[in-house]
Amino acid sequence: MSDVHANALHLPVLFDLLGVFTAASSGALTALRKGLDLVGVLVLGAATGLGGGVVRDLMIGAIPPALLTDWRYLTIATAGAVAVIAAEYRGVPAADRVRPGTPLATAFHLADAVTLGCFAVSGTGKALEYGLASVPAALMGVVTAVGGGVIRDMLVNEVPWVLRRELYAVPALIGALIIVACARFEPNLAPMAFVAAAVTAALRLISLRRGWNAQLPRARR
Amino acid sequence: MSDVHANALHLPVLFDLLGVFTAASSGALTALRKGLDLVGVLVLGAATGLGGGVVRDLMIGAIPPALLTDWRYLTIATAGAVAVIAAEYRGVPAADRVRPGTPLATAFHLADAVTLGCFAVSGTGKALEYGLASVPAALMGVVTAVGGGVIRDMLVNEVPWVLRRELYAVPALIGALIIVACARFEPNLAPMAFVAAAVTAALRLISLRRGWNAQLPRARR
Amino acid sequence: MSDVHANALHLPVLFDLLGVFTAASSGALTALRKGLDLVGVLVLGAATGLGGGVVRDLMIGAIPPALLTDWRYLTIATAGAVAVIAAEYRGVPAADRVRPGTPLATAFHLADAVTLGCFAVSGTGKALEYGLASVPAALMGVVTAVGGGVIRDMLVNEVPWVLRRELYAVPALIGALIIVACARFEPNLAPMAFVAAAVTAALRLISLRRGWNAQLPRARR
Repeated sequence: MSDVHANALHLPVLFDLLGVFTAASSGALTALRKGLDLVGVLVLGAATGLGGGVVRDLMIGAIPPALLTDWRYLTIATAGAVAVIAAEYRGVPAADRVRPGTPLATAFHLADAVTLGCFAVSGTGKALEYGLASVPAALMGVVTAVGGGVIRDMLVNEVPWVLRRELYAVPALIGALIIVACARFEPNLAPMAFVAAAVTAALRLISLRRGWNAQLPRARR
Repeated sequence: MSDVHANALHLPVLFDLLGVFTAASSGALTALRKGLDLVGVLVLGAATGLGGGVVRDLMIGAIPPALLTDWRYLTIATAGAVAVIAAEYRGVPAADRVRPGTPLATAFHLADAVTLGCFAVSGTGKALEYGLASVPAALMGVVTAVGGGVIRDMLVNEVPWVLRRELYAVPALIGALIIVACARFEPNLAPMAFVAAAVTAALRLISLRRGWNAQLPRARR
Repeated sequence: MSDVHANALHLPVLFDLLGVFTAASSGALTALRKGLDLVGVLVLGAATGLGGGVVRDLMIGAIPPALLTDWRYLTIATAGAVAVIAAEYRGVPAADRVRPGTPLATAFHLADAVTLGCFAVSGTGKALEYGLASVPAALMGVVTAVGGGVIRDMLVNEVPWVLRRELYAVPALIGALIIVACARFEPNLAPMAFVAAAVTAALRLISLRRGWNAQLPRARR
């Protein structure tokens, strides 16, 4: 039983750090697409990787946020941005290829979808650890999942993905609700955490590919 | 005397919840105008309805913010967005009509003005309860009042109303100062809270209608 | 030795208040350039002057932030905006002249560079006082230094300077690292604080003048 508890304690951090890496990569890819310089790539990568977690930590009362107390956060965010720069250096011109259908557009959306899954799990898990009820905890999972991307898109003057047509918040919410449901019935969280993250990422990629959205029946534009 | 105190405790929540409803409606109307889908309407509605209060709560030390501890906040924010969707469903095409002079542009500005009044009162009142001095409390009233709208406008890539020509922050400041003045002389806050909210909303609507602004005498453009 | 400690306690506030003044001026100059009215100038000035410090204070756990507990912050932010309005009034048409090479473009970039230096010092110093380790403290110095300008630029729908070509975050980081290094070897912080602020401001102005950036060798645009 103490194993279960140990898992419950460490899983959020594991998924949090994985999400920081992929989110920072998505931020760095956006920076390359926009033609920013090295500092711009690092700053936008770090802001995207760490922004959602900071908002979550401030709201649940984890102050100072993990970023300031655990050296791995800043290190891994930097690593996520550097990995993108390294790919650019090795002759993979990221900036030119972040368009629909190209390999690096796929890389961007893959990084973004994995981020969504990881942060939905880690955000919900950490909020539960801090004593929040189920619905608020799931909400914090969604905020963590979409927060970094919102900051990224606002910084480069684009309307955030969460407001665009393909489903974005809904997969994150589903992942968060899986975690909340599991925690309520107290099974071993470990396997379900991977399932929740995978379901979220898969739903996001499918809805992007199929152009799924929640069109209002009678809306006119 | 305990009645007065009970009023002082509950009034901010009452006005806060009313402001959440109207703010969420204004966010949902903006989302329809921008052609967002159902999820976009709900997300922008919730962000607009809840954003100002979250910033206020983090700053005055009410952590976790009310949104995470009181189920009515998320429920009422959702209701505000759903009400707009329901109107759209019932053949009132909100998206087409949020233009000057149309009924739903009036609805948008009315919702926005009522939000301004309610949040100026609730933000100031809650800040006073948390022990802030008069001027900082009035400032938190203004931040609560304008915060959700700033988040709404920034998310859809528009310059926030608070920076545009018609008076917006000034009515909120006047409402906040009325509350601060009342609290200092300790009358029954209840009637004055309604007066302060009504004065704020009315001033906002009048300044919008008359095109009032605080033009700099010698500014050149 | 107690003198050193007294210095360590008061220097961050001194530099913080100086940074608030220059940051508020840079916000007010931006507002004039954009043709905003008197309220817009005051709001954008206050948001720019106070925004970075609020983010820092929330993250390091200084809640409520200094702005709400020390009357000098709001007063000095207002003074910074009013100083710009006064210059406009006295026949110095700020709005027309914030272009490269004009006196007031120089004033804007000077105010912005001094802000960067002062907030890098005050942000790092205050974070150290709140018990953060060296690297997180330096990070908070950078966040304080660039935060207000990011908020300013996002509010008027521009891509923040920190993401543009000339070095911006790097001078702030160098100033923050000087403070961190000094604090580790425990000399009298006072003279080094002025050196760190001056180095940061000077590096920013030089990189702006020379068009320094950190161009990626193989990036394509």
